[in-house]
Amino acid sequence: MNKGELTRQRIIAEAAPLFNQRGYAGCSIQDVMDATGLEKGGLYRHFTSKEELAVEALRYALANSTRIRMENLEGIVGAVERLRCVIKRFVETPSTMPGGCPLMNAAIDCDDGNPMLRQVALEAIQAWRGRLVRVVEEGIERGEIRGEVEPRRIANTIIATLEGALMVSRLEGNKVAQEDARDSLETVLEGLAVR
Amino acid sequence: MNKGELTRQRIIAEAAPLFNQRGYAGCSIQDVMDATGLEKGGLYRHFTSKEELAVEALRYALANSTRIRMENLEGIVGAVERLRCVIKRFVETPSTMPGGCPLMNAAIDCDDGNPMLRQVALEAIQAWRGRLVRVVEEGIERGEIRGEVEPRRIANTIIATLEGALMVSRLEGNKVAQEDARDSLETVLEGLAVR
Repeated sequence: MNKGELTRQRIIAEAAPLFNQRGYAGCSIQDVMDATGLEKGGLYRHFTSKEELAVEALRYALANSTRIRMENLEGIVGAVERLRCVIKRFVETPSTMPGGCPLMNAAIDCDDGNPMLRQVALEAIQAWRGRLVRVVEEGIERGEIRGEVEPRRIANTIIATLEGALMVSRLEGNKVAQEDARDSLETVLEGLAVR
Repeated sequence: MNKGELTRQRIIAEAAPLFNQRGYAGCSIQDVMDATGLEKGGLYRHFTSKEELAVEALRYALANSTRIRMENLEGIVGAVERLRCVIKRFVETPSTMPGGCPLMNAAIDCDDGNPMLRQVALEAIQAWRGRLVRVVEEGIERGEIRGEVEPRRIANTIIATLEGALMVSRLEGNKVAQEDARDSLETVLEGLAVR
């Protein structure tokens, strides 16, 4: 990486938590200038617009949360156990990015506008669901999960329950809603397994 | 209601969808002036600050969504059937307020700031959960729901799953995630009933 590319990456890394906490409208170029110590001209040498910077910041934040949530799943034996691990990590591993889940923040922030940010959030949801769907499908193929289970339904339910519970937990300042969600999803998982 | 109070109510009703769609930072006083046709001085005759107007707008939006979601539940016989009705209404009844669920929007918008808005959202979550907890508790008392069911867990699970699924559905522009959530919650409900 040359110096210009290093500076660009540093701007993205420092802008990501600001956009994640404050939202697109709530995070100004001045905020990014303050955080990075760069002048406006220095920022615009690397990004053509605030929207381009916000898109790169969102991609960075999403890559970070996806890594925490989904990496090394392959080492876990059994499809139901893999899903259990995804749920456990989501509930127990605090995000390293201040401001909560970047996927939910971006989804709520841009569902009435910002088509570029919306597209990035949409692709992230679809990628996450795709990973979960494949875990369920492989479980069905290996005879671990009942054949009549609809993989998309399970994936959507896990994502919805975890994200909604995180929203409640962040608002309440405790983990009760997330722990309740984990316990209810455990019942869903128990219903998947071939007996 | 005198004329001043009528104007105040009109401002709140017209500001509510703007704040709900654009968020606190994304909705300016100018936006409210444009929507209401009032001058800045006219607005500040009724509200001391943008925050006070945003709080009243959120209360208005929340009262609207609570009414759609929870009214006339008492007419439905059976605790499990009441919960089923709450889920069905949430999934099937489109909000009359543009911008999605005001509770989720406010929760995500203010979880890193805006303590007054955060407090209103927190009270709304607690009131909604309280209503659902009482439905489950009454079901247990009447012998319709198994005694070992934890009412708070069921209430948190319903809220989290519905809100998370709405987030996914709005992002994707279709109802698949909400219908999947409804089907999974149906399985949760079936597990509650005394057999």
